[in-house]
Amino acid sequence: MRPIDESYSRIPALFTDLYEITMAAAYWDNKLNSIATFDLFFRELHPKRNFFVTAGIEQALNYILNLKFDNDEIEYLRNLEIFQNINPDFFDYLSNLHFSGTVRAISEGTFIFSNEPVLEITAPIIEAQILETALLSIINFETMVASKAVRVVRAAQGRMVVEFGARRAHGPGAAVAGARAACLAGCAGTSNLEAGMLYNLPVYGTIAHSFIMAHDDELTAFKEFAKTFPQHVILLIDTYDTLEGARLAARLGNIVKGVRLDSGDLLSLSNEVRKILDDADLKETKIMASGDLNESRIQELMNAGAPIDMFGVGSELITSKDAPTMTGVYKLVETEESGKRHARIKLSTDKKTLPGRKQVYRNRGPDGLYKMDIISEEGEYDSDKSLEPLLRTYILNGQLIEELPKLPQIRSHLDNQLKSFPESLMQLKKRVKYPTKLSERLKDVRRDATKEHEEWKN
Amino acid sequence: MRPIDESYSRIPALFTDLYEITMAAAYWDNKLNSIATFDLFFRELHPKRNFFVTAGIEQALNYILNLKFDNDEIEYLRNLEIFQNINPDFFDYLSNLHFSGTVRAISEGTFIFSNEPVLEITAPIIEAQILETALLSIINFETMVASKAVRVVRAAQGRMVVEFGARRAHGPGAAVAGARAACLAGCAGTSNLEAGMLYNLPVYGTIAHSFIMAHDDELTAFKEFAKTFPQHVILLIDTYDTLEGARLAARLGNIVKGVRLDSGDLLSLSNEVRKILDDADLKETKIMASGDLNESRIQELMNAGAPIDMFGVGSELITSKDAPTMTGVYKLVETEESGKRHARIKLSTDKKTLPGRKQVYRNRGPDGLYKMDIISEEGEYDSDKSLEPLLRTYILNGQLIEELPKLPQIRSHLDNQLKSFPESLMQLKKRVKYPTKLSERLKDVRRDATKEHEEWKN
Repeated sequence: MRPIDESYSRIPALFTDLYEITMAAAYWDNKLNSIATFDLFFRELHPKRNFFVTAGIEQALNYILNLKFDNDEIEYLRNLEIFQNINPDFFDYLSNLHFSGTVRAISEGTFIFSNEPVLEITAPIIEAQILETALLSIINFETMVASKAVRVVRAAQGRMVVEFGARRAHGPGAAVAGARAACLAGCAGTSNLEAGMLYNLPVYGTIAHSFIMAHDDELTAFKEFAKTFPQHVILLIDTYDTLEGARLAARLGNIVKGVRLDSGDLLSLSNEVRKILDDADLKETKIMASGDLNESRIQELMNAGAPIDMFGVGSELITSKDAPTMTGVYKLVETEESGKRHARIKLSTDKKTLPGRKQVYRNRGPDGLYKMDIISEEGEYDSDKSLEPLLRTYILNGQLIEELPKLPQIRSHLDNQLKSFPESLMQLKKRVKYPTKLSERLKDVRRDATKEHEEWKN
Repeated sequence: MRPIDESYSRIPALFTDLYEITMAAAYWDNKLNSIATFDLFFRELHPKRNFFVTAGIEQALNYILNLKFDNDEIEYLRNLEIFQNINPDFFDYLSNLHFSGTVRAISEGTFIFSNEPVLEITAPIIEAQILETALLSIINFETMVASKAVRVVRAAQGRMVVEFGARRAHGPGAAVAGARAACLAGCAGTSNLEAGMLYNLPVYGTIAHSFIMAHDDELTAFKEFAKTFPQHVILLIDTYDTLEGARLAARLGNIVKGVRLDSGDLLSLSNEVRKILDDADLKETKIMASGDLNESRIQELMNAGAPIDMFGVGSELITSKDAPTMTGVYKLVETEESGKRHARIKLSTDKKTLPGRKQVYRNRGPDGLYKMDIISEEGEYDSDKSLEPLLRTYILNGQLIEELPKLPQIRSHLDNQLKSFPESLMQLKKRVKYPTKLSERLKDVRRDATKEHEEWKN
């Protein structure tokens, strides 16, 4: 089996919220460390999304497999005021802790909907608890970017979309992980070299305005770049005057593979620039557009017939600007003691959870398209071969047991789904609800867990 | 001088856009590596902000001082298709590259406005060019979070605000850097242990719903936590029924330092919970609130007299949800050849730049309050002691020469400014424009640079 790529930046074990460790100490102190199951799921889809696309699973599994507190981290914890009266054996326990449990997950590049568990962790409760913060941080972010990217790519109707957001991402870490999520969801590549190296993504880019401005005139700048990179001449032409830039670029002849527009009215400029290029017999020279693009603007440009061959998309993609936060949560759904499993429920206002270990089954209609998901008890419909279970076991007893798909496989998995869900779901602006339901047995579990709690209360 | 904290996660040199390296190769190949100056600035304030608060300067300087391509990175670049015909000496040059220039910056925790250079880099153009992507990524993000946090903290009118966003940040890197930016701007601390260790921030947190749910009943969970942490009993009381939770918490007596509400109507619940606590003679027990909070909701709660003593703020703070992207750019403003300085300008539609090396002077009125900023040529008003220059030299000839303030100093610097700007600017909802103007000499430079370009064109 291919091991998970070692090149993922390691996420430190200390990247967790303090309360995960205080809870761990209290579980440990009270000898409550039996098996527990947690679900990671999104309470609701964002109002601007008809579906999410899972991403971040590989990085999440890598984090889990490498979970280990180092000595500096343990020392830091030991010295925190809140831990001053804790039995020091707890820190010995913590310094030896690694993940020994089971992880089930929905593979990357899969459409998902509200309340469907994306990741399910079953392990001694301390191990499972400590993972919460990092798992949410990884999955929330990467799923958000993949879910945005799939929209941008679709708007481009087959034209290449390149991820250009490193400078506007929420810091370097977001830029790198976000570039992978964008490519997983259909972007042709990224401008980000670190992401390119880590994840083996195609990288794109040629020149910025500064290169033009560093020369006394635009034509000299173009020529000097072309001299160094004769096979890769894509010229940025809007530094001073876009049409003048296009005419100067055209003077270089068919060495010019492309020109890039980064400002102004991209529809009229792309038409005028196309004409300048065509008139110079540069019909093969491509036009690339960038500058505050998103799926709506790309759709408008495409619908208006703008002769743009490639899009570079930055800020709005890497920050999912119209939906920049995710509602992923990580909730205890079951505890197990002496072999007895006990479904657990939270009843907070508007934040009620679904108890028990689950499976999500996806059901196709007679036309072959997916028509409904059923959130069920684990194994509930396994014998029904017409239903596709989404959660698979990736880690068992702390070991990776299932090969993870590589990026091209993830993309083809996503392409298959784009063809397998009703076309109406893909609309960029209209909100369409894909049906999901709870199985009868899961409803029973929920009713029993609610009732059980009511009884305790009385 | 205190060295910059080594514990900052190192940002790799390869964290840059491909075009920075293709431009570097073209500069190198064309023997254009004389001194250049770049400005990092925000074109405009976000429509929902009256000012930004600078952050990320320390991390940016640390990145610059440690810039170094390692062998793997050079190998990766060498093997990219686009570099196949590049003179291999370029990669030797790149592998020896470090920063040898000058960096001026506006210190962290400073109010800034549109078009004011926050960072100015003067160095051989290849060095300065390669820094672009990472500097923007760092400064855009951290300044965004600090600018949001100062609003949230202000809304809380002196009540403690703790940063709770790790799970909703754009990945672990954003969570860690964002926690520092939030604390720099007034948050009392963070839930994020990794950030706590790296930046020496106070850390907060006690229990989550899972701890309650892992026990058969809520009271047992409360008691077990209190047994392990008798000095730090802050109980989460909304897992099942908030008022019932409050009554159970009250049964533990004055060991309970606080209770936390995380759902429901926080105004009515905080009043009812306060009454339950007071009736149990627990007047010292604090109420903490969390759950989808932002500056508007906190302001409403405070204005309605909600008896809340502390706020935990997550998603909306760490993602700056109402303004989740920043417009920071990094533009060439001057080149220098054989000692002759040459102001450079970009004329793209709506993206015109201010040429030349600059200083930002801040001017107080007779009432002692700041009344206007003047964006000027470097040194232009240095003799006028009534004007406060904001840009200082931190790195000279590649060496750190100015001690960086520690977090408490940054906070006190920010506190001073909160008192020194007109109160109207601090309004959360109303947009107020603080006046900034260009000096006459800077206008001249801009006119000359524009004219010079027009002449080339003709």
